[in-house]
Amino acid sequence: MTSTPPTASSGQVTSGVSADHPGVNELFALLAYGEVAAFYRLTDEARMAPNLRGRINMASMAAAEMNHYEVLRDSLERRGVDVVPAMTKYASALENYHRLTTPSTWLEALVKTYVGDALAADFYLEIATSLPDEVADVVRAVLSETGHSQFVVAEVQAAVTASEKQRHRLALWSRRLLGEAITQAQYVMADHDELVDLVMSSGEGLTQITEFFGRLQQTHASRMQELGLA
Amino acid sequence: MTSTPPTASSGQVTSGVSADHPGVNELFALLAYGEVAAFYRLTDEARMAPNLRGRINMASMAAAEMNHYEVLRDSLERRGVDVVPAMTKYASALENYHRLTTPSTWLEALVKTYVGDALAADFYLEIATSLPDEVADVVRAVLSETGHSQFVVAEVQAAVTASEKQRHRLALWSRRLLGEAITQAQYVMADHDELVDLVMSSGEGLTQITEFFGRLQQTHASRMQELGLA
Repeated sequence: MTSTPPTASSGQVTSGVSADHPGVNELFALLAYGEVAAFYRLTDEARMAPNLRGRINMASMAAAEMNHYEVLRDSLERRGVDVVPAMTKYASALENYHRLTTPSTWLEALVKTYVGDALAADFYLEIATSLPDEVADVVRAVLSETGHSQFVVAEVQAAVTASEKQRHRLALWSRRLLGEAITQAQYVMADHDELVDLVMSSGEGLTQITEFFGRLQQTHASRMQELGLA
Repeated sequence: MTSTPPTASSGQVTSGVSADHPGVNELFALLAYGEVAAFYRLTDEARMAPNLRGRINMASMAAAEMNHYEVLRDSLERRGVDVVPAMTKYASALENYHRLTTPSTWLEALVKTYVGDALAADFYLEIATSLPDEVADVVRAVLSETGHSQFVVAEVQAAVTASEKQRHRLALWSRRLLGEAITQAQYVMADHDELVDLVMSSGEGLTQITEFFGRLQQTHASRMQELGLA
C-alpha cells in the first residue's frame, strides 16, 4: 500500500451525505462494537501489568472506551436502532483483529493500546469531517474523550532507550498492528455495502479512501517516532 | 451479630471529626482500592455472561467503578497523598473478599454485582453523614454515580420465579456475600487504627458501629426481597 499525499481539497469536503443514510447506523454500530471489544481486550491485557499503577492506567483507558460506547449507543437509540443486534454484525472483524494481535508482553500491550487509541482517534477525526453536522457531532463527542493513552509514552521510551532489541521488536509489532487494522477495515468495507456507499458519497469516493489509508500510515509513523520506535 | 434498631439520634450526627483526620486519607485509599478491585472482578465475572447484552451491562458497571475511583484519586492527590502506595495497604482485604466470593454461575455473578453495588452505596451514605462537609462532598460525588446495577433485578427475578432450587441457592449465596463483606470490613478495622479512630470520633463510637452493621443487614434484607430471594 503506497501513501498518497493529501490534496488541497481533502478534509474540507462539504458533505453530500444525509443524516438518514443507512450507512450512518452501520458506522455507529461498528464503532460501538469496537469500543466494547477494546474494553474487554484492555482489561485482559492489563493482566500483564507489572504493578498496580499499570493496571489502574489500563482500567482508566478501558472505562473511557465504555464512555465512548455510551455516546454511540444513545445516538443509535435516538435513531431507532436496536443496538445490540446491530453491533453483533461487526463482532467477527473486531474479534479477529484482537485475536491476531494478542500481545505477549506488557510492552507489546502498551504499544497496542497506544496505537489502537491513536488509530481510533484518526479514524473518528477523518469521518467527522466528511459527515453531516448532526452525525459529526456524535463522532466528535466520542473523539473528545480519547487521548487517555499518554501514560504509555514514557514507559515505552524508557524500555527502547535501554534496549535496541526491544526497539526492533516493538517497531515490527507496531507495523503488524497497523497492517492488521487496515486488513480488517478492508474486510468490513467489502462485507457492508452501506458503509462503502457512505464513504463513496461523502465527497471524493475512492480517491478519498486511498488518501485516508495514506494519512493513517503517515500519522502512524509520527506516533512511532513519539514512542522512540522510528 | 444482632441488629440493633437505629436510635433517634443516628444519622444526624454533627461531626466532631476534622477534615485533616489521618483516617480520612485511609478511608479514601480503602475505597479507591475497592473501586479498582471491583472493576477487575466485574470484567472477569462478565466472562460468564450468556450474551453480548450481559457483557455490555457488566462493562458499564465496571466503567462506573473507575469513575468513582477517579473522584477518590483526585481528592487524595489534593490532600497530598501518594495514591498508589496508600491504596496497596488495603489490597489483601479486598482481594480476599473477591477470592472468597468467586461466583460459579452467571446468576451468582449478577447477584454479587447487585449486592456489592448496594453495600457500597449503603457504606458511602453512612460515612457521608458522619464526616465533615468537605470530605462528605467527595463521598456523595461517588455515591451519586452508583445504581448502575438495576439491570440485574429483572434477570434474577425471572430465574428464581422459574426455579425454587435457584431461589434457595441464590439466597444462600447472597447471605454468604454479606457475611464475607462484614468479616473483611472487621479485619480492615482491626488492622488500621486511624480508621477505627475516625469512626469512634465521628459521633457515638462503638454504638454507631454496631448500629451501622445492623442497618447494613436490614437494607441487605430489603434488597433480597427486590431480587425475589427473601
